[in-house]
Amino acid sequence: MTVMFLKRWLLGDPLKSAQAGHERLSKTLALAIFSSNAISSVAYATEEILLVLVLAGTAAVAWSIPISFAILFLIVVLTISYRQIVHEYPEGGGAYIVARNNLGELPALIAAAALMIDYVLTVAVSVAAGIAALTSAVPSLFAYRVALGLVASLFIIVMNLRGVRESGKFFAVPTYFSIGALGVMVGIGSFQALFGQGVSVSPDQQTAVEELTLFLILRSFAAGCSAVTGMEVISNGVKAFRRPESQNASTTMIYMSLILAALFMGISFLAYHYGVMPKTDETVVSQLARFIFGTGPLYYALQIGTMLLLILAANSAFAGFPHLASILARDGYMPRQMGTFGDRLVFSNGIVILGFLACFLLILFRGDTHALIPLYAVGVFISFTFSQAGMVRRWLTGKGPHWRKKLIVNGVGAVTTGIATIIIASTKFTHGAWIVFLLILVLVWMFRSIRSHYKAVSEQIALTRDHRPPIPRRNIVIIPISGVDQAVIRAVDYARTRAGEIRAVLVDVDPESTARIQTQWAQWGCGVQLTVVPCPYRSVLRSLLDHVEELLQKNQDHWVTVVIPEILPARWWQNILHNQRALRLKAALLFKDRIILTDVPFHLKR
Amino acid sequence: MTVMFLKRWLLGDPLKSAQAGHERLSKTLALAIFSSNAISSVAYATEEILLVLVLAGTAAVAWSIPISFAILFLIVVLTISYRQIVHEYPEGGGAYIVARNNLGELPALIAAAALMIDYVLTVAVSVAAGIAALTSAVPSLFAYRVALGLVASLFIIVMNLRGVRESGKFFAVPTYFSIGALGVMVGIGSFQALFGQGVSVSPDQQTAVEELTLFLILRSFAAGCSAVTGMEVISNGVKAFRRPESQNASTTMIYMSLILAALFMGISFLAYHYGVMPKTDETVVSQLARFIFGTGPLYYALQIGTMLLLILAANSAFAGFPHLASILARDGYMPRQMGTFGDRLVFSNGIVILGFLACFLLILFRGDTHALIPLYAVGVFISFTFSQAGMVRRWLTGKGPHWRKKLIVNGVGAVTTGIATIIIASTKFTHGAWIVFLLILVLVWMFRSIRSHYKAVSEQIALTRDHRPPIPRRNIVIIPISGVDQAVIRAVDYARTRAGEIRAVLVDVDPESTARIQTQWAQWGCGVQLTVVPCPYRSVLRSLLDHVEELLQKNQDHWVTVVIPEILPARWWQNILHNQRALRLKAALLFKDRIILTDVPFHLKR
Repeated sequence: MTVMFLKRWLLGDPLKSAQAGHERLSKTLALAIFSSNAISSVAYATEEILLVLVLAGTAAVAWSIPISFAILFLIVVLTISYRQIVHEYPEGGGAYIVARNNLGELPALIAAAALMIDYVLTVAVSVAAGIAALTSAVPSLFAYRVALGLVASLFIIVMNLRGVRESGKFFAVPTYFSIGALGVMVGIGSFQALFGQGVSVSPDQQTAVEELTLFLILRSFAAGCSAVTGMEVISNGVKAFRRPESQNASTTMIYMSLILAALFMGISFLAYHYGVMPKTDETVVSQLARFIFGTGPLYYALQIGTMLLLILAANSAFAGFPHLASILARDGYMPRQMGTFGDRLVFSNGIVILGFLACFLLILFRGDTHALIPLYAVGVFISFTFSQAGMVRRWLTGKGPHWRKKLIVNGVGAVTTGIATIIIASTKFTHGAWIVFLLILVLVWMFRSIRSHYKAVSEQIALTRDHRPPIPRRNIVIIPISGVDQAVIRAVDYARTRAGEIRAVLVDVDPESTARIQTQWAQWGCGVQLTVVPCPYRSVLRSLLDHVEELLQKNQDHWVTVVIPEILPARWWQNILHNQRALRLKAALLFKDRIILTDVPFHLKR
Repeated sequence: MTVMFLKRWLLGDPLKSAQAGHERLSKTLALAIFSSNAISSVAYATEEILLVLVLAGTAAVAWSIPISFAILFLIVVLTISYRQIVHEYPEGGGAYIVARNNLGELPALIAAAALMIDYVLTVAVSVAAGIAALTSAVPSLFAYRVALGLVASLFIIVMNLRGVRESGKFFAVPTYFSIGALGVMVGIGSFQALFGQGVSVSPDQQTAVEELTLFLILRSFAAGCSAVTGMEVISNGVKAFRRPESQNASTTMIYMSLILAALFMGISFLAYHYGVMPKTDETVVSQLARFIFGTGPLYYALQIGTMLLLILAANSAFAGFPHLASILARDGYMPRQMGTFGDRLVFSNGIVILGFLACFLLILFRGDTHALIPLYAVGVFISFTFSQAGMVRRWLTGKGPHWRKKLIVNGVGAVTTGIATIIIASTKFTHGAWIVFLLILVLVWMFRSIRSHYKAVSEQIALTRDHRPPIPRRNIVIIPISGVDQAVIRAVDYARTRAGEIRAVLVDVDPESTARIQTQWAQWGCGVQLTVVPCPYRSVLRSLLDHVEELLQKNQDHWVTVVIPEILPARWWQNILHNQRALRLKAALLFKDRIILTDVPFHLKR
């Protein structure tokens, strides 16, 4: 009862299915929920670019500007090509669905696996970066960053289990607050920079440890590609928008891209202008904010805003992951319970699994954003590429109005994201991307195994012929007992309500108590036969199993119903003091054919 | 099947009860099994004495000799007084039994709790010290001491699960080998010391960090008291001896004490003579052996011997703990399954629990003997004191032949161990002994809770009146279905073999599939009524529970039998893909009165 109460208090009362329609999101709420993932990347993307470039010394940092422009190009291409997907798939056009519709099963499963991995990484990276924003402002918390990350994750999990609309409301205010704060910083900073009021600090000169090769520049670009992760989230969630879904989603996408592009380019430009270098214990954005605002109230407001934005960004993965899992479950590639709505109209199982995996990563990588980045973005770019390629195929085969124009848009998208994928995969491969490829393989294998299992099952249980499969005609009922008490009597009386042969079975562990039980049985047994079976190995379980096996052998055309008198304690911990034998007996009997297990409960009051 | 095979291979074939008599031990085997605990303490007791004294500087070490004599006095007193217990309690006279017979329930439970804690510590301390003997000889293994300790523990656990006699055989050879090796070392060392051939090394002068107070000397004595732990083991296991049990046990006890006293006094004397000081990475015995033997084959033989003796010493706890747990279970203070013999005539559950707890301590204390010592010996001295006090009470009330002489013997024992207990408890209290006191309280509370629960249960299920308790007279059978397939048809056909009203219940999740299932039912349902229940909250489980609740309300005088068609996969991992709903349904229904759960299995072939 207490557990149920806690659940209600945390998650709210169950919602009726009929309430589902009302759970749709306005554009303002949808932008907060679906865009925080993409926009929040600005908090770490520039830093990740610099972190690679600085390996080649301070001078190499100038490359951050052309790299940022390359990423801006990616943002533009993705926005235009994803808008086409949003219009074409109003039911929600995740990479999995687009690939399955247009490319076939294997590409679809690869895209799905890649996306699932990236959802988990999104949560871990966002939470880690959010906590980094906090510890940049309050360095004394640095030591507790893993614990803080776990608390933040749990908070998001609970919010999501409450249901989508309430989460939206809850998350909208801080999201807009932090976008605003970042905007003010970029605005003031740019103004100061342009009109020469800002003091350009000369950074510590970093010695080069690597040469400035093309590979290093590409690696820096790959690290920066984390900026565009999350741009696909809207296309997965078109159905969550108010009508007209596609139109609203498409518009929201443009807002999102504009905000993302402005903030990302602004931060990259300012970081270069002020000569900010990555530090272990302070983020680039935090350093920038100190230059622009000074360490005052505005600075702290920005850090808190950034933290909230990042932590809430993880939230968008909690919309995407369970949704994808439910689609996969519906198609038979995931266990069926992933496709079941919980009390609050959300896919509770998916939320819990995503939360658990993300917490695991946070602990494993000690809450360090930089350590997680090499794994990140690989998956998302694979799914980008499959989406765009799927759309190209769609226009080529389906044609339809303006198909040439649309083909060119998605064609450019496919080629651009394809090249980016190759760059990311090759530059990050040895730094951890190989783990992602391995995981994709494992997941795809898992999806196919699950599907083929469900298929085998449905073949086996299908009613194909018109005649019923033959089943046993008669029934022997046995009641294993180890004494005579009210629970046993109750089981006997229940068994007597039914037709068929009934006998109690007693294992002869100790002749003395066997004799005593036989006497009691004469009084209470109601004429039901009592069979005493020998117990050469002191194992009651083994003796009972042998006896049942013998019954099955002797009576080939019978069911054997085992009626188990089960004493149910009043409190859960008391279970350890009861039913261990019943449990083992049931586990052993479950795997025999023609055995039917029947529990007759006897409820204790105290 | 593989698991069963592995179990057989590791543990041997099951033994018949009739073979139990043959499992009795000869004195030679019993000495190996029951004495290794006490004797092996010589490997660390002297070191623990020195470790405390050296805090007061090198000069204070001279106090180790009088302290050793005090401990020798304890050994003598315990030997004499425990022989009386062995004779008085041929069935096995552990502290629990003696206290229960003579002092009452509470002292008995305190003694039992204290003993159980000390059994666990015995395993942890012995294994840690055994590994220390190994890493003293091979310092490169020092880093792996926890892992090595765990491997050793697992080895002992498996040996014990095989059964008592085979363990005895297996353990006798190394035990005697190591006693011999230690004896040779003490012999040669003493000879050299007496006849001036040994080179007395002048130890590094240690600076005093504490003053040489009476408290420090008493703390050193308390640490040294670990030498006598395990002396009670024989009295617990009298029943395992060959006839005449008491006589054989008593004789074995004398041999044990003689060996223990000789080795302990020898090592303490030699350590002082050679000026050996405790080191972090080498035991005192190892240093001593290097002085006496040089680092040659004899030295290595001794270290290996000591290691084996210590690791096997843990074994005696594996005889004592499960035995005590089974006695407690028989008296209703522990869960009943602790009192059940396993396949190999040993109390398997007790062995596994002891092994698990000891491994937990090894990991928690990083396999460090010194860290464990402050917890050790408290419990065993509490049980010593209760045993002796119980015997005193026995002679006072029961009298009998020579009762005055016997009273004096146990009186001296009670006073001596009582004083030692107070010294140990007070000097070690802040160093960790408080944990032991707390645990004793918790265990005693647990014992009493379990007992009072079992008592409440037996009152509730007792058949006290001559008339049968009234039970429901009629039966409604419902079969929850979510489709029509062979598993469902099988359940329906089974249900039809019995009398009573039968109906299938379908939860209306989706009107389309409901209509389809109704059509199929018309063909396959054999005239069984199909009830469609609404599903406002999308929770199939909740709808079913509501329906069942309604049935129970409407039919107060009926059983409601829920027949569940259960699809059983061919492989265990496939369970995650099935029956989640059935499982949740069963868990929810188990706690309702008048509900009978019946599983009709449908076994998949692939």
